[in-house]
Amino acid sequence: MSYSAPVDDIVTALKTVADLDVRLANGLYPGLDADTVRAVLDEAGNFAADVLAPLNWSGDRVGARWQDGNVSTPPGFADAYRQFSAAGWSALPCSEEFGGQGLPEIISSSVGEIWNAANLAFGLCPLLTQGAIHAIEAGGSDALKQTYLPKMVSGQWTGTMNLTEPHAGSDLSGLKTRAEKQADGTYRITGTKIFITCGEHDMAENIIHLVLARLPDAPAGTRGISLFLVPKFLLTADGTPGARNDVVCAGIEHKLGIMASPTCIMKFGEQGGATGYLVGEENRGLANMFVMMNSARLAVGIQGVAIADRATQRAIAFAKERTQGRSSTSSGAGMAPIVEHPDIRRTLLTMKALTQASRMICLATAAALDNATYAADPEEAKAARNLAALLTPVAKSFATDVAVDVASLGIQVHGGMGFVEETGAAQHLRDARILPIYEGTNGIQAIDLVTRKLPLEGGNVVTDYLSGIGDCVTKLHASDNAGLGRTAKNLKDALDALSAATRFIGKSLASDPDAGLAGATPYLNAFARVAGARYLAEAALRDGASSSDIALARFFAENCLTAAVGLSDSAMNGSATVLASEGLLA
Amino acid sequence: MSYSAPVDDIVTALKTVADLDVRLANGLYPGLDADTVRAVLDEAGNFAADVLAPLNWSGDRVGARWQDGNVSTPPGFADAYRQFSAAGWSALPCSEEFGGQGLPEIISSSVGEIWNAANLAFGLCPLLTQGAIHAIEAGGSDALKQTYLPKMVSGQWTGTMNLTEPHAGSDLSGLKTRAEKQADGTYRITGTKIFITCGEHDMAENIIHLVLARLPDAPAGTRGISLFLVPKFLLTADGTPGARNDVVCAGIEHKLGIMASPTCIMKFGEQGGATGYLVGEENRGLANMFVMMNSARLAVGIQGVAIADRATQRAIAFAKERTQGRSSTSSGAGMAPIVEHPDIRRTLLTMKALTQASRMICLATAAALDNATYAADPEEAKAARNLAALLTPVAKSFATDVAVDVASLGIQVHGGMGFVEETGAAQHLRDARILPIYEGTNGIQAIDLVTRKLPLEGGNVVTDYLSGIGDCVTKLHASDNAGLGRTAKNLKDALDALSAATRFIGKSLASDPDAGLAGATPYLNAFARVAGARYLAEAALRDGASSSDIALARFFAENCLTAAVGLSDSAMNGSATVLASEGLLA
Repeated sequence: MSYSAPVDDIVTALKTVADLDVRLANGLYPGLDADTVRAVLDEAGNFAADVLAPLNWSGDRVGARWQDGNVSTPPGFADAYRQFSAAGWSALPCSEEFGGQGLPEIISSSVGEIWNAANLAFGLCPLLTQGAIHAIEAGGSDALKQTYLPKMVSGQWTGTMNLTEPHAGSDLSGLKTRAEKQADGTYRITGTKIFITCGEHDMAENIIHLVLARLPDAPAGTRGISLFLVPKFLLTADGTPGARNDVVCAGIEHKLGIMASPTCIMKFGEQGGATGYLVGEENRGLANMFVMMNSARLAVGIQGVAIADRATQRAIAFAKERTQGRSSTSSGAGMAPIVEHPDIRRTLLTMKALTQASRMICLATAAALDNATYAADPEEAKAARNLAALLTPVAKSFATDVAVDVASLGIQVHGGMGFVEETGAAQHLRDARILPIYEGTNGIQAIDLVTRKLPLEGGNVVTDYLSGIGDCVTKLHASDNAGLGRTAKNLKDALDALSAATRFIGKSLASDPDAGLAGATPYLNAFARVAGARYLAEAALRDGASSSDIALARFFAENCLTAAVGLSDSAMNGSATVLASEGLLA
Repeated sequence: MSYSAPVDDIVTALKTVADLDVRLANGLYPGLDADTVRAVLDEAGNFAADVLAPLNWSGDRVGARWQDGNVSTPPGFADAYRQFSAAGWSALPCSEEFGGQGLPEIISSSVGEIWNAANLAFGLCPLLTQGAIHAIEAGGSDALKQTYLPKMVSGQWTGTMNLTEPHAGSDLSGLKTRAEKQADGTYRITGTKIFITCGEHDMAENIIHLVLARLPDAPAGTRGISLFLVPKFLLTADGTPGARNDVVCAGIEHKLGIMASPTCIMKFGEQGGATGYLVGEENRGLANMFVMMNSARLAVGIQGVAIADRATQRAIAFAKERTQGRSSTSSGAGMAPIVEHPDIRRTLLTMKALTQASRMICLATAAALDNATYAADPEEAKAARNLAALLTPVAKSFATDVAVDVASLGIQVHGGMGFVEETGAAQHLRDARILPIYEGTNGIQAIDLVTRKLPLEGGNVVTDYLSGIGDCVTKLHASDNAGLGRTAKNLKDALDALSAATRFIGKSLASDPDAGLAGATPYLNAFARVAGARYLAEAALRDGASSSDIALARFFAENCLTAAVGLSDSAMNGSATVLASEGLLA
């Protein structure tokens, strides 16, 4: 099935959560105007539809292949990647200092959705390269930046994140890869990393690995981890790839999905040690890696939006073509398109509403990051940074859970055909299933939200955010739009329940941390539903809102938000058996 | 990972929902006693662990293979099937008249769970054979029964259901397969059927197809469908397989899961017409096929329980071995097993609670079927039949949705390892994903519940059922067991909401059917959660309940039941935008 970028939905989201019209008019996004925003999205949509989407299915079937340390991506991928870089898409979000176009996060997130919807396995490589660029920008020396960033920004070279080891996944404190300083200031890196996306491939002339490792005298735990840049090919004097570094891909994983994206086992230093360059300070590597991780967490949330949108497009198209049974609205003697059956409509609208709510939460996070960058007032910038910090785990976690659920519903709409691989619906579920896992599992996101984000500024960050939702409730009550149905009532009820759960968790963190941790996942889920309902309602309340904006806000409030009260209840009152139930897990 | 049949959980469920101890003591299950029940379950568990489970992973990897009309199952399957039949497992639930053991539904459902947990792809073939046996028993002539049933009961021959055609899936009214009566009383069958499970394979010496087809002069729609028995090999005079009938397997589907189970495209009459024998009366085939479908719907619900249980076992085992991070309860200097982390515990308990709730709903349905069979009092038998009718769509739908969700959570517990196929967790999700689709999609189950089952006996069947849950609430309130926490309150709140939704749907069916249909899916979900909470609570209130029974009931009530109020709300108030939102699905 062809892919059509949801440019209108994205623009509606940006107008709502990034106040796009006002900010563009005030020149707050340097160099951007409304026409340019739409032109970029339209062009990205064309490239995605013409070049990336046609490789999605074949890429899944063929998969990445490993042989003798080399990895070949499926036919067409290397050429698509060259076109992608040549067209300047790699450079879009990057700093102009290194050849980038310096477009804001809201734009890079929006086009990121488009790449990943067309072809998630393809989109992952630029996503990680982007994360690596962020980490080098944040922590690298000027020399490292000047040497590596221009080629990474242009897309000539790609980047990787080497964190995980067999016994160090979510918890990096146990990692064993070693780094020893050499007389010339470089480091010898030895160790094994697993789950390294695009650790080896045939799409670019060099691969720049960012590797977490431990110095011989490093403190134990996460305070003894340093970050190194380890290129696949060492550079010659003129900065071009020369001798092969001592790093090899020992194999790739056989996975459930994203088949075209090689997930590599990387061996560093089998021949004595790979040459690495320190990024930032010794033993401070985790802080730099977190720069990369936070950027990547939002990007993974966007991948969730992408898959959800693609699965929804496919299901709607199928439901309009497939005929079965009669419906109360069907005309003619034959069977009705299944889109006319109320239960199928509910399913499709659920998919659509969850997708747009996720998109809005992710783009609100991106907008907060932009505000942190562009705000002239330091207080405003700080508030924006805190808002982005609060929303990042929600964006990553909710959007990726939604991706799995929506992809699964998409299969369901197809009936038996959904279970047959040729239809393409099943691939979306297989691809989506990694999203709640990588870049910090969704459980870890929930723990991050509860233990690190709720306490920000003594709890004021979350309190302010909830108070903003209260303002939305007030506006809904004041609105006389009957088309909004029970939106005001349901958002008020859900907000009250979420606020109570927020207070409960705030208290329990001091007295009984495990009770707060036990409720973290339902709490995050309730938070996201309230946040999504708020943004959809704000879109419906805008001047110029369409009848579809209003119907979508109402659908979400009446059908997706209704879970939030029960989730908040479970977050507050559900933990006793979580913590004391030995026999059940015996 | 090895499989261990959850015999204690099954027995607890049977004691609760089938009143097993009392009925056995009163001789209401002819020929059964408590020791026999446990011996059968233990033996089934041993066979499943020793013979079926070891083929689950290899069967998935190799898959069924088609060549020139023949289908080979993966290595070991044919031999396992021979052992299965030789040990008498095929015959267990069948009528003694044809060589079966005549054990009640509660036992055949329980052992059905065990086969499917060990190996879903294997379990499907006996499941469908069982359905075919039911249909022949219900509608076949004595001659057909005597000729075919003994060999099917013994497992020498397997059975299939041939319903679906490319343009007739959920809606069978459009099916085109033709049957023409011959002078000798047989029929010539011509047409194409798709999605035929085990339509061709190498595990048995004959395959007995039950085929829906249309006579030349048949009325249009579903009142013009007849049912035929079409053997793969026609029988010789002595009843053994002889000449090949005119039916071939033209290919098998490439699917997301149940790889070892061939899903066949069957061509009847490519050489002039397959010989078929009428089952029941002409044009009354759908009624007979529904006998088969209803039996199969409960069996598919049981498959859901099976996958959920297997995924839960695997995740708990992994969570005890995998160490990451520290926990508040961990001792020693190293990392803690992740089972100690509250968020992981919540996930595992959610899996466990949803699984046992599903099991209880399915076994309550089986118990009702048994009561309908064994009750001496015709009124009691009728009430039991109605209860089984009410619960069947709930059992099928909820247990299979749970299977998908629990399998997905199982992957999540494994982290990155869950996305790697070798771990085995991903296979459960791929296998589970067919369950909400086949034997009537879960949407169709919800429509069946709302439009056919709620109106039974003028609504008295559902009212009586809800009133039974009210009795459970009363008992919970009367109980002084503090270990039950908020179980009484939450069940009361959920029951009140469900009752209101039930009244709403009852009214809307008369005045505005689409509003009832639009809420069918959340209504069914709420119904199932209330029913599951009730059975778990009754298990916890039993004499001899364990602390685990009590903790599980509480966990479910405080964490899984809390969704029911919101779901009931959406079922009542969420349909406006479902029915009027043209722009959104444009």
